[in-house]
Amino acid sequence: MQPSTAPRRRGRPPKHLAEPRQDTRSLLIRTGVAVLTEKGYSAVGIDEILRQAAVPKGSFYHCFESKEAFGQALIAAYADYFARKLDRWLLDADTPPLQRLRRFIDDATQGMERHGFRRGCLVGNLGQEMGTLPESFRAQLEGVFLDWQARTSACLAEAQRAGEIAHHHDCVALAEFFWIGWEGAVLRAKLQRSAAPLQAYASGFFQLLTT
Amino acid sequence: MQPSTAPRRRGRPPKHLAEPRQDTRSLLIRTGVAVLTEKGYSAVGIDEILRQAAVPKGSFYHCFESKEAFGQALIAAYADYFARKLDRWLLDADTPPLQRLRRFIDDATQGMERHGFRRGCLVGNLGQEMGTLPESFRAQLEGVFLDWQARTSACLAEAQRAGEIAHHHDCVALAEFFWIGWEGAVLRAKLQRSAAPLQAYASGFFQLLTT
Repeated sequence: MQPSTAPRRRGRPPKHLAEPRQDTRSLLIRTGVAVLTEKGYSAVGIDEILRQAAVPKGSFYHCFESKEAFGQALIAAYADYFARKLDRWLLDADTPPLQRLRRFIDDATQGMERHGFRRGCLVGNLGQEMGTLPESFRAQLEGVFLDWQARTSACLAEAQRAGEIAHHHDCVALAEFFWIGWEGAVLRAKLQRSAAPLQAYASGFFQLLTT
Repeated sequence: MQPSTAPRRRGRPPKHLAEPRQDTRSLLIRTGVAVLTEKGYSAVGIDEILRQAAVPKGSFYHCFESKEAFGQALIAAYADYFARKLDRWLLDADTPPLQRLRRFIDDATQGMERHGFRRGCLVGNLGQEMGTLPESFRAQLEGVFLDWQARTSACLAEAQRAGEIAHHHDCVALAEFFWIGWEGAVLRAKLQRSAAPLQAYASGFFQLLTT
């Protein structure tokens, strides 16, 4: 961006000066999340994202120091978006706890259908690619899984208190199991371009809960 | 390769004329499988594989028409190698059927440990990357999963006949569930650089079998 020649004013800067960078940053993050959920990190150059977002290269480096910093921002943005999605379903007090988990699964399935099963999970894609990614992504991605597991585990514990799951179950272990396998189901749904693997996985998981 | 000026002889060609291409092809496949189980397809150029294998570029195109044809050969070679590995464990008539499956899982876990959890599953890696891969890979990869599932399902059916699994279970569905989730476990083990996700997944799966 070129330096402005407008006289400096007190207080909040006018909108056209304050917001462009923030808007560009948001646009790059939205575009980056969309592209990386479909193609992963390694197959995508910054240029492809800039082209899709119609943002010049100079602006990218005003918003992000490097492709690595951009990747970290994408993981953080996706984690935040997904945590809110999980909360929307799993904290819905009007619905019995296990039904909440079913609704989350249905919503995730519809999300994949809407994008023709081309888009998977950004965290799963990057986890799979970890062998070629900046090492700083590892703890960040693992932290996202732990966060999703904690939200899921809280819902399963509610189900247990409500008598929907037997008391011998360890809800933390069940939530971990769910997320380990769910990423495999998302991978397979992308490969088959079908909801069947998501449904097959959910069906087995709910059968496990009845043991 | 340069055309030979040696006089043509009857019968089997001498070893130095007949074998180089086959040897080079095998070497490229071995190297390619090792690199792709670690890094996937998109992040790897042919040049990296040629460098590792110390094979000149001209020789590559004597063995394979294109990177796509090479990818297909790698999937086929990995599928073959893995089918033999599965058979070694799952057809071992001296061992009770469920114990065979446990031994396969232990062997796969040790395999990942041996490579410092850097190498995952070539078929899982490519399934995850399907959004950017040649479309011809899709049916081939899905076929490999169906093959592994059939071998696993046959072992589970033996377990059922031996009374190790209750009769209400559908062994085909259980084998599908196993492979859907197992790929997620391999992904997570690579991310965590730990056997824990493989063990957690196996533990949940065997618990499901006891329902």
